[in-house]
Order: sequence, then structure tokens, then C-alpha cells
Amino acid sequence: MSKTIALLTDFGTEDIYDGVMKGVIKSISPNATLIDITHSIAPQHVRQAAFALLNSYRYFPNGTIFMVVVDPGVGTARLPIAVQAGNYIFVAPDNGVLAYALSNFPNKRVYEIANTEYRLPIVSNTFHGRDIFSPAVAHLANGVPIEKLGPELADVIQLPMPELTVQEDQIDGEVMHIDRFGNIITSIGELHWIETNRLVLSPIFGDVKSNVPIESSHARITVNDTEIFGIRVSYAESVRGDLLALVGSSSYLEIAVNQGNAAQRLNVSVGDRVQISLGEFDATVRN
Amino acid sequence: MSKTIALLTDFGTEDIYDGVMKGVIKSISPNATLIDITHSIAPQHVRQAAFALLNSYRYFPNGTIFMVVVDPGVGTARLPIAVQAGNYIFVAPDNGVLAYALSNFPNKRVYEIANTEYRLPIVSNTFHGRDIFSPAVAHLANGVPIEKLGPELADVIQLPMPELTVQEDQIDGEVMHIDRFGNIITSIGELHWIETNRLVLSPIFGDVKSNVPIESSHARITVNDTEIFGIRVSYAESVRGDLLALVGSSSYLEIAVNQGNAAQRLNVSVGDRVQISLGEFDATVRN
Amino acid sequence: MSKTIALLTDFGTEDIYDGVMKGVIKSISPNATLIDITHSIAPQHVRQAAFALLNSYRYFPNGTIFMVVVDPGVGTARLPIAVQAGNYIFVAPDNGVLAYALSNFPNKRVYEIANTEYRLPIVSNTFHGRDIFSPAVAHLANGVPIEKLGPELADVIQLPMPELTVQEDQIDGEVMHIDRFGNIITSIGELHWIETNRLVLSPIFGDVKSNVPIESSHARITVNDTEIFGIRVSYAESVRGDLLALVGSSSYLEIAVNQGNAAQRLNVSVGDRVQISLGEFDATVRN
Repeated sequence: MSKTIALLTDFGTEDIYDGVMKGVIKSISPNATLIDITHSIAPQHVRQAAFALLNSYRYFPNGTIFMVVVDPGVGTARLPIAVQAGNYIFVAPDNGVLAYALSNFPNKRVYEIANTEYRLPIVSNTFHGRDIFSPAVAHLANGVPIEKLGPELADVIQLPMPELTVQEDQIDGEVMHIDRFGNIITSIGELHWIETNRLVLSPIFGDVKSNVPIESSHARITVNDTEIFGIRVSYAESVRGDLLALVGSSSYLEIAVNQGNAAQRLNVSVGDRVQISLGEFDATVRN
Repeated sequence: MSKTIALLTDFGTEDIYDGVMKGVIKSISPNATLIDITHSIAPQHVRQAAFALLNSYRYFPNGTIFMVVVDPGVGTARLPIAVQAGNYIFVAPDNGVLAYALSNFPNKRVYEIANTEYRLPIVSNTFHGRDIFSPAVAHLANGVPIEKLGPELADVIQLPMPELTVQEDQIDGEVMHIDRFGNIITSIGELHWIETNRLVLSPIFGDVKSNVPIESSHARITVNDTEIFGIRVSYAESVRGDLLALVGSSSYLEIAVNQGNAAQRLNVSVGDRVQISLGEFDATVRN
Repeated sequence: MSKTIALLTDFGTEDIYDGVMKGVIKSISPNATLIDITHSIAPQHVRQAAFALLNSYRYFPNGTIFMVVVDPGVGTARLPIAVQAGNYIFVAPDNGVLAYALSNFPNKRVYEIANTEYRLPIVSNTFHGRDIFSPAVAHLANGVPIEKLGPELADVIQLPMPELTVQEDQIDGEVMHIDRFGNIITSIGELHWIETNRLVLSPIFGDVKSNVPIESSHARITVNDTEIFGIRVSYAESVRGDLLALVGSSSYLEIAVNQGNAAQRLNVSVGDRVQISLGEFDATVRN
């Protein structure tokens, strides 16, 4: 069975970097199947990549090898690592980029990629995506056991978790991502509908791990001085141009404009604060 | 034989959406071959996608399954559909996005994608590309008969056709697309050279279906107050920087600048009017 | 064994062009593996594509067929060609786009793609990527011998080589590429470290072919009126925000900002002059 290698990087597709990495992988592992998650992570934005990986890895086939290269420390002492976690292998620089996804795996084994046999013969100081990570994933796809790559490490480097604090009458989070449509994706998740007008928040991040009930029509969302009343089930509850809050496809609170661009309209950026105030009013009246 | 799945969406490649859909497809149909037509349709621009599909589908292998997801109505009552037409299958939201391509197929069978067996276990309200369309194309690629997806429907939703009106001495159309090079692609097609200085228009759109002869040197093209005299056979009849009209690669009238950007020079946008005046002068004199 | 076809074009991925070419290739050669080097070469920028090919081809598997389509002369008398060089085949318009890569192959055989059997039945005047080059690479991937494509030619069209002049106390080059990170990639290569503080330049371009020793701490780099003292081994010798010169991943002199954008900071563009002054001072003192 051909192995799937999923690529998540900040190399873009405008230069030759992405293509060259694929050439290296295919030279070593001709039968590997390559899938791009994205190469458009903002340059050196480790946290954006960590969040993207967290929200995407579970949709890939069992056995997928993820190559995650956002590597501001290339050429420094940071280690290249390969991690076995569940049915997946994650290969990346050890700079925290795997931390969010790996928080879902209580059992994992972490290895340094140290064995020069599984690198290109010449390793540059500026492009380990090509010289170290691509050969590593290709050899793993060929069936090389992960422990052959190098010594086992105790753990991976951690990354500050996204903000998510739960108090009695409010939930505070932050803007994690603005997507192509201008949808504002927040750290407030995961949210699930349990009945009409009633959601439950099972916090992915933050110290509180118990479920928090939310009456959707009593929720007031504040972002960048704009207030939005209520959380909608779908775009069907709005018309073109409406600003609305809803549960996005990765189960986070998402702020959107029906067929429009919410981030532009609200002038919101990654890192901005988002707040849900609970139960202070009835959105069916206010909205 | 591995099935080809061709993807045409407005999801972009900057986010995880495109990659996640591919992960879902490959999880269900590991041997499917995925080809991106483009993911850069303008957000929610159903018509642009319909035109792109019309001009691309015929170049794909027999048996190709097209997944076309431009879906402003996600989460509303619009149906997900799969259509057997000729040797192809088209999978899309039923919002008109298939209408232009399907107008070429007198016989087709349309099915609602209703069978929950061929969806992801949890279906979000905002990302049916991942939860409904990707599993559907993957199961189809695995050989699931299309009629298993759900009940047959009478027809697909239609979309207003591009403007193309033919009168005795003029042809009116509209700008359908501006490409990466700034070439202005119009609805006036399809055009074929039948001899030197003589074209024939076989209207793809509009009420007139009979062929219209055009003397290329007697044609005056008007777009956004700019006049262009004559239709050229190729760029070879111009020099760098020349503005010219010619027959583009999809057989539409196209306005271009030799090694330059026509849309920028003429300040032309999608939807602008284009007119060909026939036979009023001799471009070999005027130009 | 499935053949790899690597694509390098200026067609972008926003339009249908890239996808349609892949559809054509897969229709003829269903088992070919397609890898994108990039489709983001600046429109009609033959030289940028030639440089990209030079720096990428060697990372692809033996037997790879490269389809390089940057084709400002489409529809003119320029010939479509296929070149056997080493274990690779290069397919392109004969406009110089292959010249830099082929300069590494003393023995090569050049063929015109003239045989209409290996084209699409209808050949447009504006999209030979689809009508001529895609079918050619697909048939080659299927094992059609290259000499079947058409008559052998004496050589390919040449392209002015990048500037690289070596004098006693200075080296002059030019900016060849600005990458996604804003790194400034120059024509001064290839550079290799031979010991601490000592590099050797083995000129890829220019008339001087003998090796030039460089004491890295005595090198002063000038670009757009900015001076940079010394050539660093890696980013580890700098901190965030530092402007530095180092040897890039393709062994050219590269000017970068640690986790920043050098091209923006220095207002540098492709074609700008770059100079290394040798041995005039001690950067360990000056810097």
C-alpha cells in the first residue's frame, strides 16, 4: 500500500522550494502519495502551522506521515524530530509546531532525526525541508522503522496554548486564523449543538476542561468593539451581507459575513480578543 | 484502473480546506488520482466556476469525476447532487454551477446525494466540501453506483447564461474572465478560422444558434470605450506591447496585450460589455 | 515504473490552464506522476524560469521529464523542443528557457516536436502548453522514443547568462530572484565553505571558471547602497531582525533578514547589482 505524506509548510508555491522537496521525496520513495495541506503558512509563523495541523490531521488516512516545516530556527541547535502518535507519524523541527496536535495523543514516541544515512549527502544550513525532513519522510514511507532515525527524546518542545478562559458568565478567547473568505476563526471550541438554542463548549485549550453549557440566543459575542447577538446554526439563518457568529467546520466559534468578508468589515486580525458574554439578554428580542 | 477526481473550488490553497478534502477522499479511496483544476475561483462566484468547468472538463480522461464546490448556500436547503453525463460524473451543490457544462449533454441523470452512508459521520453546517462532497466522489471513485447516492431528480438548477446576442451587423457579449496574464476572455465564442481573414462564430450562448461569418479585417471590437480593429490569428501578428483581439485557447474572442496586461491597460472587469461591429471598414487600412 | 513529469510554468494556479494541462497529460498517460515545481514564474519571464530550472532539476528522480512552459512567443516561429540530457528529458519552447540547466550537460540531443501524431488533434495559436507540450511529455512518459517526436536539431537557443565577473579584489553579480521570505538570491555562486572563515567560489556563470577563495570575515557585500560585512555560516550567527549575507540553499550568495524580509527592507529588485569586495577590512572588527 502506498503511504500518504501530507505537507504543511510556509514555503509557498511561488518558489521552487515546494517542488524540490517533492522531487527529493519521490527520488527516495517513488510510490509515496503526496498531499499538500497548505504551503501558505505565514513565513515562520509556528503557531499558525500548529493550529492548522491540529485542525487537519484527523482527516488523513491511517498511516499518514505529516511533514510540517515552519522553521525559523533552521541552522540553529533546534532538533529535527519524528514522532509516532497513534497511527500517524509527524516529522518537523522541534520548535513547538507539533505541540497542539500532539496534545491529543497521551502516548507518543519522539525521536531525533540524527542518522545521516537518512539525510541528503550534503546538508545546507538554510533548507532542512529539502535536506533533512524530505529524506526522513521518504524513508519512513519506505518502511524504515522510526527508531532507526536517531535517539529517542523525552518529549517535544511545547508552545503557548491559545487563550481560552472560562468564567461564570463569560468566555474569553482569541482570533486564531482569518481564512480566504474573511471568516474569523477563534480559539473558542469545541462547540457542539445539543439541542435547539443550546450549545456545549468542551474547551480544547485553557485550564477548565469541564463542559460549559451555552444558550445560543443569550450569547453576546464581542470582537474589536463589535457586538454580535446570538450564535446561529447555519448561514441559512441569515441573508447576504449579515454579520453572524456560528460554529465553524472545526467546531470553533467563527464570525462570518454571509457571502462577505468579516475580517475586513470588522478590521480584525489574528491575535485579537474575542469574548462571549453568557445569559445577559435574549437575542431573539435584541437581534 | 485508478479513477481521476478533478477538483474545482473557491477554497483557495492558503487554508487547510483543500488539503483536508483530499485527506478525506484518500481515506476512502486510496487509489484515486486527484487533479486540481483550480481552487482560486473568487469566493462564492458560482458563475465563474461554471464557466471554468465548461472550458476545462473535456480535457480530462473519460471516467473523470468532477467535484465542483462553490457553495454560497452551504447549510441551506440547496441539495448536493451527482450527475452522470456522458463519460463523466459531476458532483456539486445544486446551485447552477454545473449548468454551463451540462448544457453540452442532452442526456444526463441527476441524483441527490442523500444517503448518509456516503457522508462523513458528522456533517457540519459550513463545510460540505469535506463532509458530503469529498466522501461522495471518493465512494464513486471506488465504484459505488451513482444511483446509490440518493433519489433521482428531474434536472439541475439553471444559471443565467452569459450574454451573447447576434444582430445583422454586430455581436454583443460580456467579459467572462480575466486571467493571470491580464487577458480578457469574453463570452463571444466559439470562433473558428475557416480561411484567411474569415472566421465563423458558432454561438455557445444566446438564442441564435446558427453560424455567423466574420471577416476578421472588417471587425471592430469595442470594450470599455477602447476600439480594436481586426481579429488576429496569433501573437505573431503583433509586437510586444500591442493591444490585439484574437481567438483564445477556449475559442472565445480574447483581448490581449502582447507580453502585457490588457485588463489593466483597458481597466476592464468581469461583466463589462464587449461588442464586435461587423463589416464597417477595412482594418488593413485603418490599423 | 511510473514516470515523473515535473511542471514549471508561468500559468499560475488561479486559472484553468494548469489543471487542463494535467487533464491532457493524464488522458494520454494515466500512470504518470505529476509534480509542480512552480506555476508562479512571472508572466513571460523566461530568465526566471531558466534560473528556477537550473536550481531544481537535480533533485528530481532519474528519468524525470520536465515540462517548462514560459512561452512569450507562442504562435510565432519559435520551435517546440524535447531534449535528452543525462537521465532527464526537458520539453519546452525553444526560447532559451532550458539554456541554464543544459549548460551542465556536455552531451545532449535536441529534437523538434513536429510529429502531429503526438499533439492534440486541434492546436490553438495561444496555448501550446495544452496542445503540444502536454501531449509530448505524456507520450514520452508512455515510452515513445524522443527521436519519434521530430527531426534532430543542432542545439537549443541560448539565453544571456547571469552576470558574474571576478576581479582581483571584487566579485560582481546581480539579483536573480526574491523568494517568498524576501530573501535576495544572487548570481554569485556556487559558494562552498572549506574551513572556518574560508569560502571558495566556483563560478557557475561568467568567463572565469577557476576557483576564487574568499575570507568570509573580510568580505563586504554591497547591494542597493547597503553594505553588509562578512558572510555568515547560518542564521544561528544572527538574531531576529539582523540583516546578513550567507550561502543559500542553492549555493548562491543570499542576503536575508533573520525572520524578516530583506528585499523589502533594502528595496531590492531582480536585476539589481550585487558586489563582494574582498579583503579590505576585518568584519570581526567592523561588524
